[in-house]
Amino acid sequence: MSNKVTLLVAGSWGTALASVLADNGHDVYMWTRSNEQAAEINQQHTNARYLPGIILSERIMATSDMKEAVDDSQAIIIVAPSSAMRSVVQQLKPFYKKGTLIVHATKGFETATLKRMSVVISEELGCPEGDIVVLSGPSHAEEVVQKKPTTTVVASLNDELANRARDLFMNVNFRVYTNRDLLGVELAGAFKNIIALGAGMSDGLGFGDNAKAAIITRGLAEISRIGVEMGANPLTFSGLAGVGDLVVTATSKHSRNWRAGYALGQGKPLQEVLDAMGMVVEGIRTTEAAHAISQKYNVQMPIADQLYKVLFTGKDSRTAVEALMGRDPKTEMEVMKLETWEQWHT
Amino acid sequence: MSNKVTLLVAGSWGTALASVLADNGHDVYMWTRSNEQAAEINQQHTNARYLPGIILSERIMATSDMKEAVDDSQAIIIVAPSSAMRSVVQQLKPFYKKGTLIVHATKGFETATLKRMSVVISEELGCPEGDIVVLSGPSHAEEVVQKKPTTTVVASLNDELANRARDLFMNVNFRVYTNRDLLGVELAGAFKNIIALGAGMSDGLGFGDNAKAAIITRGLAEISRIGVEMGANPLTFSGLAGVGDLVVTATSKHSRNWRAGYALGQGKPLQEVLDAMGMVVEGIRTTEAAHAISQKYNVQMPIADQLYKVLFTGKDSRTAVEALMGRDPKTEMEVMKLETWEQWHT
Repeated sequence: MSNKVTLLVAGSWGTALASVLADNGHDVYMWTRSNEQAAEINQQHTNARYLPGIILSERIMATSDMKEAVDDSQAIIIVAPSSAMRSVVQQLKPFYKKGTLIVHATKGFETATLKRMSVVISEELGCPEGDIVVLSGPSHAEEVVQKKPTTTVVASLNDELANRARDLFMNVNFRVYTNRDLLGVELAGAFKNIIALGAGMSDGLGFGDNAKAAIITRGLAEISRIGVEMGANPLTFSGLAGVGDLVVTATSKHSRNWRAGYALGQGKPLQEVLDAMGMVVEGIRTTEAAHAISQKYNVQMPIADQLYKVLFTGKDSRTAVEALMGRDPKTEMEVMKLETWEQWHT
Repeated sequence: MSNKVTLLVAGSWGTALASVLADNGHDVYMWTRSNEQAAEINQQHTNARYLPGIILSERIMATSDMKEAVDDSQAIIIVAPSSAMRSVVQQLKPFYKKGTLIVHATKGFETATLKRMSVVISEELGCPEGDIVVLSGPSHAEEVVQKKPTTTVVASLNDELANRARDLFMNVNFRVYTNRDLLGVELAGAFKNIIALGAGMSDGLGFGDNAKAAIITRGLAEISRIGVEMGANPLTFSGLAGVGDLVVTATSKHSRNWRAGYALGQGKPLQEVLDAMGMVVEGIRTTEAAHAISQKYNVQMPIADQLYKVLFTGKDSRTAVEALMGRDPKTEMEVMKLETWEQWHT
């Protein structure tokens, strides 16, 4: 097997994963649309826009030629933004050879179709979803390139592919767990951005640690509830792609979702918040998706619902929190169908 | 039914709960050993040592006379330190009348016996464990008295008692969920202090948010694993007493457990850390208890095990983290017996 591994595209998380692969002795080819970015990576060994101040391994090469990036590669790691995923995979398709390991590390849905990333990839490559591996978990890119201890999860319907992905990435600073719940890991990674937005809003309103912990915990309950209804293992949401990633995203001022929520909590209108960020805030799109999904599956998502009203109907954020606190009394536990447990009892 | 409610004893969490009860229109009698503290609460309406800067409701009265505190009370809320629980309940016993609601809000085990608080209480009162309710969840006392939004959980084997406890406490700032898993709520509240200690240690070693999220998530996995083995519902650990309380404790610099872990991570010896704190650090006792429990049940608790070695055998904390990162590859999901799911499928 060749020592070559391909990475599409050269954002901050993609570059961090490329560094892990280079540390493990692989020759990493990053594909990017930008010739300038490719030249910077090849000649200066930096990717200053996405990871300022970091010197990259000389094992990381970049090219804007998809054929050069992919030819004879043992694995293709796709880290495109969710909105660009379909077009990136369409460009990959002519050079993809069956048997090449496909791992993606993108969180979110295709907005127009509400499809998960592995569905988009398998549609475009014409392969079963079982051929795809997802990598997720609590992992700021900046800490990964600094070799700070990080844990992640790879999930696939196919154990052998999950193990291959694990062996590609695992080292003493980057620990990789395996999981069979591809769908749950993808849903947890996408939905958790809604809860991070809510946690930021609570902080922006001047509430405390108790309120933030409440939003994280009850948010976890509602994204687990919809996830289980869609076919996920409830325990996936207690794992690295769920709780782990949620803790990192909801308690970090570096998180775009947290920052957008914070500004909304301070009473700024949505358009002003978006203009000030100048970047995509995945949690806002995902709140819209969750609103549609919760109606489709007829599952209550009270936090996502209140956030939707704040974002899209101009509801006051303090009134939204009061509505959450004033709901009828509830039991804490979800009622799960026994088939759910049987399905995941292996 | 009388409007009187009793609270033992007058620490910071007990006083915060007394404030919630007073807000709900109850006449609250706090019992304290100290005549000076009782006089301060009655005359100045403050409890300055435990909640500096807070003026208490005039509905809160204090007494060092147990009979006066308990007579004709509809509910007794016990918030004694775990080490004092048995002796406080022994003092309560002569005045306890069957049918009075008993709620405790203490986290931890009785060190010598490894017994849960509801077991200690029921032994001393001579009543079944089903007569006890536990209240837990993510709740800094300081934020509760400031009426910041807070969510908690009450658990009992008896739904009617859980509902009575909920109705006693619930208001628009203090939301109460119910749960049937008394044992799980008690175990989660106790074990989470170990993980908070580990999160502090990671910060003290200079690791980042990824490492802390890893300790929180994998810590949650191991306290769920031992909890299930002891008879708990795995989902309780994803709830307010588990994830919720863990997030508040492990990410707050106000947490004693986090601060003790931080000092250990910086290389300070245990005795020096304890001397500097001048207070009980529950997580240290609980690590010792978990070590014994994990051996008794033959369940792996890798994080608690490494913490035990750092605390009690002088192992270097960095070496302990390396040992955790260097373990053999694992799947993320616990293998649960189907009976576990059946038991909690209601």
